[in-house]
Amino acid sequence: MNNDIDLSQIKSPADIRKMNLQELTVLAAEMRSKLLEKLSAHGGHIGPNLGMVEAIIALHYVFDTPEDKIVFDVSHQTYPHKMLTGRMEAFTDPAHYDDVTGYTNPAESEYDLFSLGHTSSAVALAAGIAKARDLKGEKENVVAVIGDGSLSGGVAFEGLDYGATLGSNFIVIVNDNQMSIAENHGGIYADLRLLRNTNGTAEPNLFRSMGYAYRYVNYGNDLKSLIEMFRAVKDIDHPVVVHINTMKGMGLPVAEANKEEFHYGSPFDLKTGEPLHPEMPDSPEDYGEFFGRHISDVIKENGKVVAITAGTPGVLGFDPARRRAAGRQFIDVGIAEQAAVDVASGLAKAGMRPVVGFVSSFLQRAYDQFSQDIALNREAATFVVFYGTMFGMNDETHLGFFDIALLSNIPNLLFLAPTCKEEFQSMLDWALTRQDRLPVIVRTPGGVALSDPQITLLDDYSKPEYEIVREGKDAALIGAGAMFRFMSQAADLLAEKGVNVTLINPRNLSTLDTAALDRLKDFKIVITAEDGIVDGGYGQKVASYLGEAPVKVVNLGLPKEFLNRYNYSELQQRCGLTPAQIADKVLAELK
Amino acid sequence: MNNDIDLSQIKSPADIRKMNLQELTVLAAEMRSKLLEKLSAHGGHIGPNLGMVEAIIALHYVFDTPEDKIVFDVSHQTYPHKMLTGRMEAFTDPAHYDDVTGYTNPAESEYDLFSLGHTSSAVALAAGIAKARDLKGEKENVVAVIGDGSLSGGVAFEGLDYGATLGSNFIVIVNDNQMSIAENHGGIYADLRLLRNTNGTAEPNLFRSMGYAYRYVNYGNDLKSLIEMFRAVKDIDHPVVVHINTMKGMGLPVAEANKEEFHYGSPFDLKTGEPLHPEMPDSPEDYGEFFGRHISDVIKENGKVVAITAGTPGVLGFDPARRRAAGRQFIDVGIAEQAAVDVASGLAKAGMRPVVGFVSSFLQRAYDQFSQDIALNREAATFVVFYGTMFGMNDETHLGFFDIALLSNIPNLLFLAPTCKEEFQSMLDWALTRQDRLPVIVRTPGGVALSDPQITLLDDYSKPEYEIVREGKDAALIGAGAMFRFMSQAADLLAEKGVNVTLINPRNLSTLDTAALDRLKDFKIVITAEDGIVDGGYGQKVASYLGEAPVKVVNLGLPKEFLNRYNYSELQQRCGLTPAQIADKVLAELK
Repeated sequence: MNNDIDLSQIKSPADIRKMNLQELTVLAAEMRSKLLEKLSAHGGHIGPNLGMVEAIIALHYVFDTPEDKIVFDVSHQTYPHKMLTGRMEAFTDPAHYDDVTGYTNPAESEYDLFSLGHTSSAVALAAGIAKARDLKGEKENVVAVIGDGSLSGGVAFEGLDYGATLGSNFIVIVNDNQMSIAENHGGIYADLRLLRNTNGTAEPNLFRSMGYAYRYVNYGNDLKSLIEMFRAVKDIDHPVVVHINTMKGMGLPVAEANKEEFHYGSPFDLKTGEPLHPEMPDSPEDYGEFFGRHISDVIKENGKVVAITAGTPGVLGFDPARRRAAGRQFIDVGIAEQAAVDVASGLAKAGMRPVVGFVSSFLQRAYDQFSQDIALNREAATFVVFYGTMFGMNDETHLGFFDIALLSNIPNLLFLAPTCKEEFQSMLDWALTRQDRLPVIVRTPGGVALSDPQITLLDDYSKPEYEIVREGKDAALIGAGAMFRFMSQAADLLAEKGVNVTLINPRNLSTLDTAALDRLKDFKIVITAEDGIVDGGYGQKVASYLGEAPVKVVNLGLPKEFLNRYNYSELQQRCGLTPAQIADKVLAELK
Repeated sequence: MNNDIDLSQIKSPADIRKMNLQELTVLAAEMRSKLLEKLSAHGGHIGPNLGMVEAIIALHYVFDTPEDKIVFDVSHQTYPHKMLTGRMEAFTDPAHYDDVTGYTNPAESEYDLFSLGHTSSAVALAAGIAKARDLKGEKENVVAVIGDGSLSGGVAFEGLDYGATLGSNFIVIVNDNQMSIAENHGGIYADLRLLRNTNGTAEPNLFRSMGYAYRYVNYGNDLKSLIEMFRAVKDIDHPVVVHINTMKGMGLPVAEANKEEFHYGSPFDLKTGEPLHPEMPDSPEDYGEFFGRHISDVIKENGKVVAITAGTPGVLGFDPARRRAAGRQFIDVGIAEQAAVDVASGLAKAGMRPVVGFVSSFLQRAYDQFSQDIALNREAATFVVFYGTMFGMNDETHLGFFDIALLSNIPNLLFLAPTCKEEFQSMLDWALTRQDRLPVIVRTPGGVALSDPQITLLDDYSKPEYEIVREGKDAALIGAGAMFRFMSQAADLLAEKGVNVTLINPRNLSTLDTAALDRLKDFKIVITAEDGIVDGGYGQKVASYLGEAPVKVVNLGLPKEFLNRYNYSELQQRCGLTPAQIADKVLAELK
């Protein structure tokens, strides 16, 4: 076996097209080895990338990229693709590990067609590219790569449905590793299993029923099988699904055995799989853990409470043990945010107490359901937002600061922004036991569940009622959610200088407490701060309401931009959100 | 044949459960006759209701409603359901025609579970109800009724995928009338056709592949067949799809023959099908017709322009003749808004010039795609919004005044609000020929395409540049889109009283023209008006920007409420949006 592949010499797919199968096999082994080194030292999407090394080599070996077009769904499995398309150094040299993002990115390479991080869109996007090719009379192959977990998202189905009508070259690779982030849920997975168990021969066949020719590769980590199949479908003149059976986490036994845990991870010991930087026993909980622990207890007491996730149980703190304990009171609908919201609506309609947990960035995948099926119908479901903060995910595809503007402008929907874990729990418990027909959003304040024993809790959060934490004059600081802490610190700084300001925790971001605001009309300045974009958010409602009053209003928050991999404290500074900046703003106005 | 059914005696489904088949047949005929009378005199959803008379009778005959639960998708086919559930008079007595809405409505009846008007959600909603039933240990039947056209929406697939896992009673009736609003598009429709052509026996079978048992009724307008089938599946202990083949427009030959035209219609002559109130030859075009005519011409000249709809070609003015003429440059993806946006993204990525037309209320079904696949990726696609106005659809499910707040807060997305047809065409033509990578929304101003020859058009709309239509002092009126006309009229009223105000057409609702606004800082009052909700909208951005300036800012627009069947002029008055009210507001401030 040739074992002297020099990875540094692979600058583009052309460099692997000269290789024979033996060399490609060595290449795969070396790439996987480098991936393991980087992933264990640096963290990232572990299982998805380890499972796709061979398939991505085979794709670039057989197809004439970049003329042939490949759209990777979610694109969290594209580390091997980046290694083959001019970015090898970012995986072999620790000094360059951060040169590339974790997703495809057109700014990095012409081989990356889109910046993608949300699931299920690749088929429809690729269908548009294929349609353009046909209209232009061109002939390149168009390939969409989508995982079995992503297939449950509605837009994947919409894209498949449209793609089937193209009547021309359109190749959908279904990467079936028998997993979503956690285990799969949904009726289609029985069919995928049947197809795997029959070497692709069984009926019914989801893909044929949608109008696709269908091919199956049982050894989806075998280069020879993959290359033969991709050659067989290259330049095909009609839509085809190639279903490949792969091993998530391939090559890292602990990841093969613990697929959910090793979907995405922080740095770990390559031998044992143990985290390199374990949490200290006394480190504070994050809100997922806090939620999972608390709701697990609630479920035991209250048979009406049902926790729901759309494919991300870990975000909610529902590890496999808690899922087992919750039994039928825990629902994972798969990656299907629209269904998660509608199932909650149906449960609430029938008298249950659904509570759905969402990553902030994924809420927007179910906007129509929030508006029509929850808010318009006033179904008493509760939604908990995780990572809805500038201090959360900082990839441009997963930003957590759009959800206030997104959801607080929907009628009938109560948007609550607790400032600490005590308030979060109080609001959550109220939401799960209230008697009205009010749908409620509770947005966790930042990542770590910090305590504030001073907070004033209410028995009823249905009406807007601002907490006036301290009373001053001339200046008021209104700090929503996680921003309350900075406002409070600014108030302390000002107090040290003898300036006493009013400090407000607004609690409710969807309806103004006009009585509280009326008392500020003759102040010199009101500053609002929210952990979200200013445009369309909470502060602008305050500015509008006080628009005819003499008081000046300043709205602090995030810019309306798709920031990418930003530095948290630099951004806070840029936005004028540090306590010192806020205090200075007040002093400048009052002097 | 018994022919003396007294419809007025039918107060609830219990009243038909005593009937024999012959009586039910007479009932169906009489109900259809009354439906034809009402529809021809009053307008409404014609085809969908005429096609479902027998199926709805059979459902209420066999199932023990309201204990058994039926969720009707879109619910535009529920006129027969309303007739049987205590609301007969609204279909037999012209004086009561407006007593009921055109959709299911829980405020009207316990038989109506949800207020629904957007497609494809019924399966997931019903799955939630079925899950609640199982958790409560109850036994009632849960039925979802969904049309073949609605099946293409992603949330339908998500709901089917989840529903298949219930492992308990769950009955999905697929009403296959071989039509969406227009003809169907998508790979699944070949399978439905195959199933119809084989009396339901063929493989592949979409529903079986998703985990459902499957039954087929070839005569879906035959009461006996339907009753037998519904009896066969009643109390079933697992998920089943019952596929019924119905005739859209059944009983009105002109509707059976012209299914698209008679999906929804205004009053018509029952004998000829001709409209009772035809448009006058010189009546102004609506924006759909204007768009369809104009883009048809553009398509002939420019091979890169592709018009796209998600199942509503008529809204875009693309009647069958224009669709044929446009050929491959017109795409209907079916009711699949997410795919429509993503296919546009793919086309733009490959250098084409896609232009997608949306009803305002349906934009929100693709929010994630607008954000991620269009805006984040800066794909130069163009989106045209129809009925984005308070003067458009006034059903609570189809309101057109949320889209400014929805889309203008997404980064990178240029939201243009033309004020008249000249400006609309100018912005649209620019959007389709510009060289940058800016995605553009162009929102048609109201329903009818009104002319304003005085408007100043630009060669480039990419940068915010307010049109200062007239210059005054102390007061400025900023009127966005259709509201510009009222602001202009208010300015005229004020001029008659010797008060000259500044009048501004902002054109761009996503980015402020800060230079123009800076000139207003020392004015006494700035009033903004937009054809959308105030919260999260354009005016609040102005209020926020001017928050530290001495000028008072008043934001006019719609309340954040799900209004239902409101009166247009009453609402305009309530919102302070009449020219007289606006002028009075200025006078009160200046005096």
